[in-house]
Amino acid sequence: MSTPVFQVIRSKNYKRSGLLHTRAGSVQTPTFMPDGTRGAVKSLTPDQVVSTGVEVVLSNTYHLHLQPGEQTIKKLGGLHTFANRKGPILTDSGGFQVFSLAHINKITEEGVTFKDPRTGDIVTLTPEKSIQIQFDLGSDMMVAFDDVTALDETGRMRTLEAFERTHRWLERSLAEFQRLTKGMKERERPLLFGVVQGGLDKDLRKKSLGIVQSLPVDGIAIGGLSVGESRKEMHEMLEYLAPLYDDSTRPRFLLGVGDPIDLRFAVEHGIDMLDCVLPTRNARHATAWITGDKKVHLTNEKFKEDTEVIDPACDCTTCESGYSRGFLRHQFKVGEPLAGTLVSIHNIRYLQRICEEYRS
Amino acid sequence: MSTPVFQVIRSKNYKRSGLLHTRAGSVQTPTFMPDGTRGAVKSLTPDQVVSTGVEVVLSNTYHLHLQPGEQTIKKLGGLHTFANRKGPILTDSGGFQVFSLAHINKITEEGVTFKDPRTGDIVTLTPEKSIQIQFDLGSDMMVAFDDVTALDETGRMRTLEAFERTHRWLERSLAEFQRLTKGMKERERPLLFGVVQGGLDKDLRKKSLGIVQSLPVDGIAIGGLSVGESRKEMHEMLEYLAPLYDDSTRPRFLLGVGDPIDLRFAVEHGIDMLDCVLPTRNARHATAWITGDKKVHLTNEKFKEDTEVIDPACDCTTCESGYSRGFLRHQFKVGEPLAGTLVSIHNIRYLQRICEEYRS
Repeated sequence: MSTPVFQVIRSKNYKRSGLLHTRAGSVQTPTFMPDGTRGAVKSLTPDQVVSTGVEVVLSNTYHLHLQPGEQTIKKLGGLHTFANRKGPILTDSGGFQVFSLAHINKITEEGVTFKDPRTGDIVTLTPEKSIQIQFDLGSDMMVAFDDVTALDETGRMRTLEAFERTHRWLERSLAEFQRLTKGMKERERPLLFGVVQGGLDKDLRKKSLGIVQSLPVDGIAIGGLSVGESRKEMHEMLEYLAPLYDDSTRPRFLLGVGDPIDLRFAVEHGIDMLDCVLPTRNARHATAWITGDKKVHLTNEKFKEDTEVIDPACDCTTCESGYSRGFLRHQFKVGEPLAGTLVSIHNIRYLQRICEEYRS
Repeated sequence: MSTPVFQVIRSKNYKRSGLLHTRAGSVQTPTFMPDGTRGAVKSLTPDQVVSTGVEVVLSNTYHLHLQPGEQTIKKLGGLHTFANRKGPILTDSGGFQVFSLAHINKITEEGVTFKDPRTGDIVTLTPEKSIQIQFDLGSDMMVAFDDVTALDETGRMRTLEAFERTHRWLERSLAEFQRLTKGMKERERPLLFGVVQGGLDKDLRKKSLGIVQSLPVDGIAIGGLSVGESRKEMHEMLEYLAPLYDDSTRPRFLLGVGDPIDLRFAVEHGIDMLDCVLPTRNARHATAWITGDKKVHLTNEKFKEDTEVIDPACDCTTCESGYSRGFLRHQFKVGEPLAGTLVSIHNIRYLQRICEEYRS
């Protein structure tokens, strides 16, 4: 029997540490995955990303499909060669971006038609198309396309119809995935994550999790959280789901969560993988996390002559190189992009270090 | 007898290679010095700057005096600690920026009074003040403050009064420099460059060079070129000056020149050091130099699916890491700052490699 995709190494209560095997290399979990939205993590070189300890980079199917297009990326050697990324890449389905960024024209059983905000072109995404795009990109881990219209902006259910469609779309995503991976060796094929929806409705969440877990997907993704609901609501749902995951050892990926407090809560409730734009977006706005999950705003006047590094307890290359708060404040005040780069490295390392602490 | 500040290692016609000894380390010449305007080379970490082979970084006295102020930088450990720069730093006098960026209120024999464009504060710079600021910054190589109003924007003389004042100001700069370095050991003191002016007037240039060379400055800077005059006019002046430099082995620094063609011409006419914002500014606008001193515009449609690196003959880390023109084009098109970082590394390396070729 071959090695399973995911191995649990240690577990205690709901917490667990594991090893996820992808065709681009193994990943220790829990793990934080920064968003390389358009192929690259904003303002960081791949080496700088690796310096944070990060083992997976996420890229956005929606953005890359619209620009430069998956066929262009394929011709440029696939996403790894394109973005000079040596390790595993996870792509999302594009669903979340279609529903949050584009002007939707029509949602049918077949798929979603929307207008490209840049060109005005009419674009159609279906479950099959999303998988095909992720395939052409050369993704190592894919996510099934779901109908996010089931939820309002605070995670509450809007239509049962969309909720049910999400699962029919998951079956179509899986069928397309199986068609495209047919004949590939087990260790050479990408992995597929099915998405659990249901918003803040516990019964629907339970039902959705049951459906996703009943299918031969490689991983379980939890979608539709961190979309505007309160922290209490999100935590309650993670707590509710924790005992419901089945014994099949599949990795569990919580989409779009990257606040340290939420990350800790999620890992303590059985989550293995998380992604978020928060560490890099916060960094570009001069906000850094420091020990105790506190936030510091580096443009604050009080840091003007502060010779201390962002966090003396931090082992990121920015702190270890000795960049002072005073220097970073200056760079932000004069609009130099280096400041965002240096603080992005710090913030990503902050989250990844939390994950590493849970592993040991 | 102690080692002189500058040693000529080889020379042929006017070309020469040498070794410049500064308190922060030795520098092989000819050398290109990128501009770290506000303390850091735009969008590059110090390690990335070092990766280009660059041995000196230039910082702008004008910008750093206005924000965050030399006293703040001094409290943060001086410019090297502040900007995490391990090697030599050269600072300019602030003169060029005062006259090109600020709203001048008054020019007297004493100095220049101008309005800070950001705060509206009235600021006065004098030769003494400029040297004091450069001292507080912790600069390894300083430039004397000159009256640039002598020139119009194409390098033609406007007033003989300003031209003559430049030399009186040089004597005051030198006196202040000597006062501040008094008692310092020879190898621990910074170096001072006097500036040759005279625009496109050969007689005035000769006179100015004679005055500067008659003073005990450590280096000769050529100012007032690359300010709008034609390439032919600039080259004629460099050609005219080449046989006029004296035998005292002092380094010659051409201010603000960084086009590869001009850089080659300057080095072939006795110049040892050059600085310019061009490689980084061009890079941010998607323009890269390639073999033959040609320019490529990486946003061009023809690079969309181009798998080649910027210049296959280039040894910069961007080209050696394999980033394709197609990837860079995409990153520029979507406005990702990583593209500017990667092409800045390439462009700086392009100029520094030309310098290295002249050394061997």
